[in-house]
Amino acid sequence: MAGKNALYAQSGGVTSVINATACGLIQAARRHPDRIGKVFAGRDGIIGALTEDLIDTSLESDADIARLRYTPSGAFGSCRYKLKGIDQHKAQYERLIEVFKAHDIGYFFYNGGNDSMDTAWKVSQIAEKLGYPLVCVGIPKTVDNDLPVTDCCPGFGSVAKYVATSMREAGFDVASMARTSTKIFVLEVMGRHAGWITAACGLASEGEGQPPHILLFPEIPFDPERFIARVQECVERFGYCTVGVSEGLCDAAGNLIAEAGGKDAFGHSQLGGVGQVVAQLIKDKLGHKYHWALADYLQRAARHIASKTDVDQAHALGERALELALAGRNAVMPTIVRLADTPYRWEIGVADLKNVANVERKMPPEFITADGFHITDACRAYLCGLIEGEDPPPFRNGLPDYVRLKNAAVTKKLGEFKV
Amino acid sequence: MAGKNALYAQSGGVTSVINATACGLIQAARRHPDRIGKVFAGRDGIIGALTEDLIDTSLESDADIARLRYTPSGAFGSCRYKLKGIDQHKAQYERLIEVFKAHDIGYFFYNGGNDSMDTAWKVSQIAEKLGYPLVCVGIPKTVDNDLPVTDCCPGFGSVAKYVATSMREAGFDVASMARTSTKIFVLEVMGRHAGWITAACGLASEGEGQPPHILLFPEIPFDPERFIARVQECVERFGYCTVGVSEGLCDAAGNLIAEAGGKDAFGHSQLGGVGQVVAQLIKDKLGHKYHWALADYLQRAARHIASKTDVDQAHALGERALELALAGRNAVMPTIVRLADTPYRWEIGVADLKNVANVERKMPPEFITADGFHITDACRAYLCGLIEGEDPPPFRNGLPDYVRLKNAAVTKKLGEFKV
Repeated sequence: MAGKNALYAQSGGVTSVINATACGLIQAARRHPDRIGKVFAGRDGIIGALTEDLIDTSLESDADIARLRYTPSGAFGSCRYKLKGIDQHKAQYERLIEVFKAHDIGYFFYNGGNDSMDTAWKVSQIAEKLGYPLVCVGIPKTVDNDLPVTDCCPGFGSVAKYVATSMREAGFDVASMARTSTKIFVLEVMGRHAGWITAACGLASEGEGQPPHILLFPEIPFDPERFIARVQECVERFGYCTVGVSEGLCDAAGNLIAEAGGKDAFGHSQLGGVGQVVAQLIKDKLGHKYHWALADYLQRAARHIASKTDVDQAHALGERALELALAGRNAVMPTIVRLADTPYRWEIGVADLKNVANVERKMPPEFITADGFHITDACRAYLCGLIEGEDPPPFRNGLPDYVRLKNAAVTKKLGEFKV
Repeated sequence: MAGKNALYAQSGGVTSVINATACGLIQAARRHPDRIGKVFAGRDGIIGALTEDLIDTSLESDADIARLRYTPSGAFGSCRYKLKGIDQHKAQYERLIEVFKAHDIGYFFYNGGNDSMDTAWKVSQIAEKLGYPLVCVGIPKTVDNDLPVTDCCPGFGSVAKYVATSMREAGFDVASMARTSTKIFVLEVMGRHAGWITAACGLASEGEGQPPHILLFPEIPFDPERFIARVQECVERFGYCTVGVSEGLCDAAGNLIAEAGGKDAFGHSQLGGVGQVVAQLIKDKLGHKYHWALADYLQRAARHIASKTDVDQAHALGERALELALAGRNAVMPTIVRLADTPYRWEIGVADLKNVANVERKMPPEFITADGFHITDACRAYLCGLIEGEDPPPFRNGLPDYVRLKNAAVTKKLGEFKV
């Protein structure tokens, strides 16, 4: 007789490798038909779980599940929806248990960032309190790389590879045109609170004068005068200046620089666009022509240039999450444990969810140079393994051939529930 | 005894494959040491030629020249510098001939877009007039794909592949988040006068409802009401809406939409950012949360996702240019001739420079759907071959391993010349 069913849900901003985790988990489950029943997925994450909108992944072929390994985004849908404390949202937690009961779900996998690990931990607690037998396993995911305990977060390595590649390529472009045209190039990348992605831009540079020349981290308050002086120094020495800037860059008072961007044609505050704000500042103060790029979703969806290390880790975490569940390990999260920097070696470890939930990991100060404008060798040693290796998807008609699953719904057994 | 030397110069905005053309040309020259001397390159394009700032490519190893095939940007530097008519700029044309004489240059290769083909043609005329024996060959290059006669322009196919890939990837991302988060995504791409790159975004879609849902071409005056209605229709039918927009989008009066973007914090007109303008318009009218991306230089420098067809064509055009020169074919440009759409087959042809110079090729009306918001099957048939095939560069330490040449200067023989 098969064991209990499982529920897998994706949470928060998606990445280019979160489906590799789903792939690893579902493949591992299919290797144990005697011990685990069906793997259901929440349609649009935890909202699907709450509304009993479940996807039956057993209807997808082995071949299509394998294709998840190289398909970006959340194949079952994700959502931005945070369950609050059990006291405030008790009905929601109880509803989850009700859905689990109705569909004979004994394993719950929540694949997300900080908030999701907190939710997973709370679900494990309420199940225990209500006497419902459930094994609850969190699985890390976030391009922000800000989860504690784990060496890194799946999704980050591929964004890192994308931004470093893009910065190197744009840097070559600007260098070859700078004499008569654009002298300033600014690339704006993600990272509201932590500068990990901005730091990754720095990997593009391997020697004196190579792009990027300046990095602007959210951890370092923006000082326009020091910045402008450094830009001018770069233009004088190298003929041009390239800048990587975090969307979360703040001034000394903690205000987002992007929000200083004035009003648009419709009278609204300009959101985002810190890249343009700093580029325009250079134009105003120094007169140099600029270009700027806003990578936005392109960076976290760029599966075509994913890091093989990142894909391998994402897949292995999915597999291990399933194994931990089968071993009855409740309220845990598989992690990446670093064994060596160069060459990078890693293995999977295990953390207690309560030690992960709601802890945000920032860049260590020793990863940023004393002047605040670049990364240190210690930072390079940390980052370089995470972008190692290529794992291109198959192409068809000149474009990446990503899978679109059937995502057939499981028949509902309960009444409606408003979220 | 070796033949005359050659001068090769890159011109205008660089691409991810212009160095593949340089590679093909220099490799072909090295196969004929009995018929052609050294290949010099103008440092920063025609400015290097005018100022006698020449690079001796014979000092680069065969291995490094081979690496040019997969290195984006202009390896010898390019410039935005247009020589005007011979009457206005006669001294400059005469100076060029003087530099050619001083360095025994009998072959001049100018690798660029419309303006450059015009310059190449004028140089061929003045050489004849002054009785200086010169074979002058233009070589096409432009991501804008707006040169006449040739089937396509080297550089465009790779940008096309990049924007279609990026649109597909971002589309997957948005689809998976749309229920509770971003419903609108806008990708702004290059193309001031012609919508070729915007059209290429459309290749990401292979069926009803797939991104991109709407394309905004510079050829079609922007009608905000029709646009907003279509966006709302997409959100209702598919749950989200993705848009590809050309930087050159104009209103019915011919004004650039980007310039309607209001003032920034410093009181300056906001340049660029048409993507944000249309995204914000959606937010204002329909209230949907948006994200937007500005690919900027990332698109034309993205050698990591170059089209193999494009790379092969760029390389073949460089080889053929050299062969045409050795055959004494003055004032011509090698072209791409299309033999079949599917599968795409092509060969190299030859055009007279005077038929290419200053003619701009726009998108044919039959390539845009009747509603103005997407591409037709005829357009797909034209585009699909151009993005066919992958040709990734080698990677080192997780990043593309592009070459930086020595670019040693040739000893000057003439006095200074102001440009």
